[in-house]
Amino acid sequence: MSEVKRIKPSLSKGTRDFLPSEVAKRNYIFDTIKTVFRKYGFEQIETPAIEKLETLTGKYGEEGDKLLFKILNSGDYLKDVPKEELTAANSQSTTKYIAEKGLRYDLTVPLARYVVQHQDDLAFPFKRFHIGPVWRADRPQKGRYQEFYQCDADVIGSNSLLNEVELILIYLKVFEELGVDVTIKFNHRAILKALADIAQMDVVKFCNTLDKADKITLNGVFEEYNKEGMPIDVQEILQSVFSHVNPHQINGFENIFHGALVFKDGRSFIHKEGHQAILDSMKIENCVRDITNEISRVKVQFDISLARGLNYYTGLIVEVKANNVQIGSLGGGGRYDNLTEMFGGQNMSGVGISFGIERIYDVMEELSLFPETISQGVKVLFVPRDSSVEEFTFQQTQTLRDAGIGAEIFLGNVKKQKQFTYAEQKNIAYIVEVGGDEMQSKKFRLRNAKTRDTETDLSIEQIIEKVK
Amino acid sequence: MSEVKRIKPSLSKGTRDFLPSEVAKRNYIFDTIKTVFRKYGFEQIETPAIEKLETLTGKYGEEGDKLLFKILNSGDYLKDVPKEELTAANSQSTTKYIAEKGLRYDLTVPLARYVVQHQDDLAFPFKRFHIGPVWRADRPQKGRYQEFYQCDADVIGSNSLLNEVELILIYLKVFEELGVDVTIKFNHRAILKALADIAQMDVVKFCNTLDKADKITLNGVFEEYNKEGMPIDVQEILQSVFSHVNPHQINGFENIFHGALVFKDGRSFIHKEGHQAILDSMKIENCVRDITNEISRVKVQFDISLARGLNYYTGLIVEVKANNVQIGSLGGGGRYDNLTEMFGGQNMSGVGISFGIERIYDVMEELSLFPETISQGVKVLFVPRDSSVEEFTFQQTQTLRDAGIGAEIFLGNVKKQKQFTYAEQKNIAYIVEVGGDEMQSKKFRLRNAKTRDTETDLSIEQIIEKVK
Repeated sequence: MSEVKRIKPSLSKGTRDFLPSEVAKRNYIFDTIKTVFRKYGFEQIETPAIEKLETLTGKYGEEGDKLLFKILNSGDYLKDVPKEELTAANSQSTTKYIAEKGLRYDLTVPLARYVVQHQDDLAFPFKRFHIGPVWRADRPQKGRYQEFYQCDADVIGSNSLLNEVELILIYLKVFEELGVDVTIKFNHRAILKALADIAQMDVVKFCNTLDKADKITLNGVFEEYNKEGMPIDVQEILQSVFSHVNPHQINGFENIFHGALVFKDGRSFIHKEGHQAILDSMKIENCVRDITNEISRVKVQFDISLARGLNYYTGLIVEVKANNVQIGSLGGGGRYDNLTEMFGGQNMSGVGISFGIERIYDVMEELSLFPETISQGVKVLFVPRDSSVEEFTFQQTQTLRDAGIGAEIFLGNVKKQKQFTYAEQKNIAYIVEVGGDEMQSKKFRLRNAKTRDTETDLSIEQIIEKVK
Repeated sequence: MSEVKRIKPSLSKGTRDFLPSEVAKRNYIFDTIKTVFRKYGFEQIETPAIEKLETLTGKYGEEGDKLLFKILNSGDYLKDVPKEELTAANSQSTTKYIAEKGLRYDLTVPLARYVVQHQDDLAFPFKRFHIGPVWRADRPQKGRYQEFYQCDADVIGSNSLLNEVELILIYLKVFEELGVDVTIKFNHRAILKALADIAQMDVVKFCNTLDKADKITLNGVFEEYNKEGMPIDVQEILQSVFSHVNPHQINGFENIFHGALVFKDGRSFIHKEGHQAILDSMKIENCVRDITNEISRVKVQFDISLARGLNYYTGLIVEVKANNVQIGSLGGGGRYDNLTEMFGGQNMSGVGISFGIERIYDVMEELSLFPETISQGVKVLFVPRDSSVEEFTFQQTQTLRDAGIGAEIFLGNVKKQKQFTYAEQKNIAYIVEVGGDEMQSKKFRLRNAKTRDTETDLSIEQIIEKVK
């Protein structure tokens, strides 16, 4: 490090440092979620940040491919690029010669790879959670980063609807523990598929438009459907679905795919999968309500206009909305069928949820939901008045640590009274100053760093008792 | 995900997946270390994986620069490369045009950047710990990965030697908790500097040769010094230092830089900084011994031949060796002076240690030091005999969870008796099978998954009591 040129330190765009107080708050969220996951039988896994580009490419659509961070090959990386590519300076076609690795874009594709690769070592149904950073070369903006955390729980290899129930219960439990008031909205992809079938539209296109209901209202959605050429009688019948039954009570939908929908020309509409999806959704909702003793009546809500962007869902879909804050969803998930297929795995059904950590953090900050003192490591700060008592003070500090209490000795400049700022910044509850008198008498004065109240004449054992 | 070509899943070389059991063991190590760090007043920080290349380049020597993973710029990254560079296919000179970001190589340079960038928001002395992955484009081999974890604790901005004492105590505590028998070797860079001054050699060159003592013995070291042209009288006097006093007892060295070393021509040798370094080291060692009540007499050991590779250390240096296993060091650290200087920060002294997580894991595996059941999330596996009792079984599972006990319902194929393999793989202690009888009577049979012992006729409340 001898000949280093001095540079003004700065971060790469879209990345963040976290101060100790921020890490403590983030850990509070992570730990709350982890504890619930573990109690429900989900086990943590890890996958590398770096994946082969062949693993990542083609899984996130054309736009996603562009947002993959690619890692330059080591050594003489240009040596295998055909001369004509270089002369043409064609970035797109050159990439495959100079980069074979990338940073993971999410935790889902790595999960698919992981399940196929390690299937012989895993217990099925495989219930795993994974918390870690992912990277996207998105344009950074408020609340959007190039490096951010995802937090997912999935069950692979079980068709039981009780998995859906369990995942909804996990959402309820986590947000209850965090003190965030949320509504969990749900819908079912096969219901949407049935509606798309009525509309004679591709389900993806149908859902992409429906997904905008939040922003442009249902009327706006139908204007778009109209522009897209949906026949007028179909529009009418769909509108009757959306308006004549409560779009938030699935019970009202029970028979719509079972003959209750009648076209003007007298045709009625039977859609077996759509009907089953409604029965399944009702079963899930009822089971959640039985378990939670009605608590969830307001918390868990059917929403016929919920579509969710990702196309790989095939069954129930869920989304978590904060009730008192204007912010995007705090989490989402659903059932999917073909996750492991892309890596040649046998077709295993999966269902999963994710927590939007960054947004949950923002909501908790905005509503001041973090506890005032988050698991402070240190309770007592010992301050030696001068160097002659340093070692003695250090021994007292150590006595507290041996008794299982976090303690620190202040080794900064005592004269400047910085110890008080220090205790405040680190949220340390008590201060004990030590000078010659204390060393002599082995009696100390315990000062509450916040209230400045003091108690005098305490032995070290009494201090241990007090702060324990 | 419709038009995806199927590929055989594999990892990028030098990277790893971790199975749930491996993550649990790694977390056991991390949690043990974190708990001790926190109790000693170290706070966790995070920095991004991605740093600007200008932050990283030039900090790790020429070899290090080659091992940095560089991230290809997004979009049309070739458009700013001068035509002639492309035509020449000169990889080295092209990099600066096409990559401006890289993956962090360690946690130390990011710490330096962090301290300078956030100095107004930090409490000094700044005691931080950081655990996270780093990336190096090294050739992978047994025990060496391209993506691996580092685990560092540092104190920035305090000259007190009690920091050194504290960090050694942390080492002792952590390895005691992990059950790993270690020796902590220490030396002082200023002692080595003084010896290099006697030898009239550059201290880095002197240390690089001395550092090989472990492998080639001290005799081998002197053969190399001889080849490097060290005068014979200097060799003699140095050999007397290394052989006539116990190289593992610093007390014997007390006066060597204070006149006790006498050349044949009668010159004696005074080296003020060297002498002070010996006094400092003795003070640190004595203080550790006072605190630990002699326990450490065998655990903490001076070693005049310890040099440590990294050149930025200026004060005490330490290294942790496992006592019963042939393996490289399990940790190391020391005091350094100019960390923040490279980012224009004021000169702040720092001292830190790191834990070699990957090697600690290997040692603990080899010596079977991991507890048999590492903080299992789930204690009881409920197994519904058929789908008619699924919901009832689910409710029992939920009752345990509500009582704070991790519980699971087995939703796989019960007929294949896979539930036993499942319980075993997930290390679940108890199994409760539920059929029609149990649903009727609400009495259950609790089976110990390992011993297969059973207790019958238990109510759910009794089960809660038993397993709590």
